Amino acid sequence: MAEASANDLVVMKFGGSSVAEPELIRRAAARIVAAREAGRQVVAVLSARGKTTDELLAMAGEVSERPDPREMDMLLSTGERISCALCAMAIHDLGHRAISLTGSQAGIVTDSTHTKARIIDVRAERIREALTEDRIVLVAGFQGVSTESRDVTTLGRGGSDTTAVALAAALAASECEIYTDVAGVSSADPQIVPSARRLAQLSYEEMLEMAASGARVLQLRAVEYARVHGVRIHCRSAFDDGPGTLVLPEEDTMERPLVTAVTHSDDQARLTLTGVRDEPGIAGRIFGALAEANVNVDMIIQNEPDQRADLSLTVERTDLDAARRALEGLELSEGIHTEERIGVVSIIGAGMRSHGGVAAKVFKVLGDEGINIEMISTSPIKISCAIVADAVPAAVRALHTAFELGSDAVRPEDPTGSEHRPRVAT
Amino acid sequence: MAEASANDLVVMKFGGSSVAEPELIRRAAARIVAAREAGRQVVAVLSARGKTTDELLAMAGEVSERPDPREMDMLLSTGERISCALCAMAIHDLGHRAISLTGSQAGIVTDSTHTKARIIDVRAERIREALTEDRIVLVAGFQGVSTESRDVTTLGRGGSDTTAVALAAALAASECEIYTDVAGVSSADPQIVPSARRLAQLSYEEMLEMAASGARVLQLRAVEYARVHGVRIHCRSAFDDGPGTLVLPEEDTMERPLVTAVTHSDDQARLTLTGVRDEPGIAGRIFGALAEANVNVDMIIQNEPDQRADLSLTVERTDLDAARRALEGLELSEGIHTEERIGVVSIIGAGMRSHGGVAAKVFKVLGDEGINIEMISTSPIKISCAIVADAVPAAVRALHTAFELGSDAVRPEDPTGSEHRPRVAT
Repeated sequence: MAEASANDLVVMKFGGSSVAEPELIRRAAARIVAAREAGRQVVAVLSARGKTTDELLAMAGEVSERPDPREMDMLLSTGERISCALCAMAIHDLGHRAISLTGSQAGIVTDSTHTKARIIDVRAERIREALTEDRIVLVAGFQGVSTESRDVTTLGRGGSDTTAVALAAALAASECEIYTDVAGVSSADPQIVPSARRLAQLSYEEMLEMAASGARVLQLRAVEYARVHGVRIHCRSAFDDGPGTLVLPEEDTMERPLVTAVTHSDDQARLTLTGVRDEPGIAGRIFGALAEANVNVDMIIQNEPDQRADLSLTVERTDLDAARRALEGLELSEGIHTEERIGVVSIIGAGMRSHGGVAAKVFKVLGDEGINIEMISTSPIKISCAIVADAVPAAVRALHTAFELGSDAVRPEDPTGSEHRPRVAT
Repeated sequence: MAEASANDLVVMKFGGSSVAEPELIRRAAARIVAAREAGRQVVAVLSARGKTTDELLAMAGEVSERPDPREMDMLLSTGERISCALCAMAIHDLGHRAISLTGSQAGIVTDSTHTKARIIDVRAERIREALTEDRIVLVAGFQGVSTESRDVTTLGRGGSDTTAVALAAALAASECEIYTDVAGVSSADPQIVPSARRLAQLSYEEMLEMAASGARVLQLRAVEYARVHGVRIHCRSAFDDGPGTLVLPEEDTMERPLVTAVTHSDDQARLTLTGVRDEPGIAGRIFGALAEANVNVDMIIQNEPDQRADLSLTVERTDLDAARRALEGLELSEGIHTEERIGVVSIIGAGMRSHGGVAAKVFKVLGDEGINIEMISTSPIKISCAIVADAVPAAVRALHTAFELGSDAVRPEDPTGSEHRPRVAT
């Protein structure tokens, strides 16, 4: 194995399913040790084991109707600490020195927004010290400490990915490896499209659009942090040595095909406000009220038959009630209709920017399948269509075939040349 | 209810069985809130829920053959944090402000001896701050932080009791209440002696002897800390409002009867070294080797038939193998014999100091029961006899009756006048 340079540092992040059992923790430890023995300095970020977070949430629900957010963070932050301590023990048994650090000890400094804190600084002195002492450093993901209140905070959904990327940025790591139970990012969900293929590389922008439109391998927020700080992300399987997927700045990726992947989501819902008064500032009030209720709006469509408009928008199904309550309070429309189950299919590709005709092809493919498009939203590298939820699998398969994304397609930009098939999460 | 003085502060400690289930956590929260509403400032120290620590230990055993002590502390310290966060949530639901603190946040500063650290300082500024803000403070027991290494430490067996007493001392609390699943300290184990009675009060010295000779309500180490710092301890049931047992300086207790309680232990073992060379320094080498192996010796007896002596000592059964290995390494005796099961019965009473004849009565009572006394050890307020383990229940009952310790005995010093029967742990 080639000797790595003296300062080659890698951040390795293991998700909950990769540390769920003692045997898996030992496996993660072995992988970490292998990287160290290949001459790399290693900082590993671990999530809570498997169902730990769910169990802690259930306990909180049993003692309190509305658990206090500060105490929720104190509670939830224990899960990642357990993973790290156990993994450090396993590494010791393999003959290496390891030290586990809480988010606070690792210098992850956040604001004081409990349960969804933002990282505002990374003070990694203690990690650097430990690395200098030739230790492998394990950091509890998903958590930090508020400088203001000196309290433990958690980072919310996707927090451990964000911890890993933030540490990779602060430590100028050569790479941030994200280990999950799938082989990388695929051209479509392999459970729907068996011929879906692992993508060798993606730009941050593509990955952002994919994460936002249903791909689950990487969290949107971590990708955004990586893009801003130029952190190279490497998504890999915790269970084999496959080449995985690199997420890179667009200038580092080779020439891209028109379309890279098809993503989908079937957990959306739609609200339609009928007879919205056509006045200045109305839209601002609507979206202001939704933002205040912490509801993210995905697609928006407006139809103006006369002085009054119909306005439809999609939100995550779990946010539907909150959205309805927020909009009812405004009393700006004649009525509010909701549809609980809406599907969305999207195609993503950096190559779309310089090529026309992609949208037309998407509409034709779906039309040929007899699928009615209810809403459309586009970005320079994405086209999303809201459709009946039950039609999602057929739509994904038709688009994947029409844009020739399958494993029989020629993908010259794959530097590994591997025909590695994505593993599916079980 | 009488208004308490402005600075009346109580430390309330809840053991693992008192916070094992959500319902019990809510009950502890209600008790804490009741104390607050009676006008007292409250600092509560919580143990890990029920079997949590055992589960964490089992996990460590599954990932590592010899878990690293530093990582063991990182792992084990999560249990108490979970209890505290959950209890804080329950207190919030009752309309009071609470804040949970880790041992480190609470200012419990220890040495760096992982898994059995000693408290070297209590820097309670953050607790005082929170009390000033009219908060109830919950502190994770059993843990601290090493100033030297900035690592999480744990205090070992009985650690949460020690946390509570140390905080009571540092905060000049009026009382340290220790809540367990029994009603207080009894004159004997009620499972062996149904007529055993709750003791209304005890001196530190009596409690120390009792804790050292088998009573399980309070940990020896916490009692010693309380004695040195003059902390008034109040042992109470978490499940009812019984008056419990006060542990006080001897000068504060009222006139004591001759004998206060009978304690017993049936988890002792005996080692006998035969033919020990009779040279200066031999005893020092023997007990030095045992101390180095972390083995506590309880009783010692030496018999010198000629130039060579036979020396017997009792240790906890779990320490027997370690003790044997340590002594075999010395090669000071002709042989080492072990007996795995030895019982010990003890009678404790501050009144013994000023009365003779107690030992003679003990020997006669046991003799009348046909129980052979194998070893004897005494202190000014205790007489212990090693006997066959199977004879322990009969010995305890006979001594309890002979010294008239039962609930039919007159106990004028009980200020509550209550005939409260001890509850037995289930």
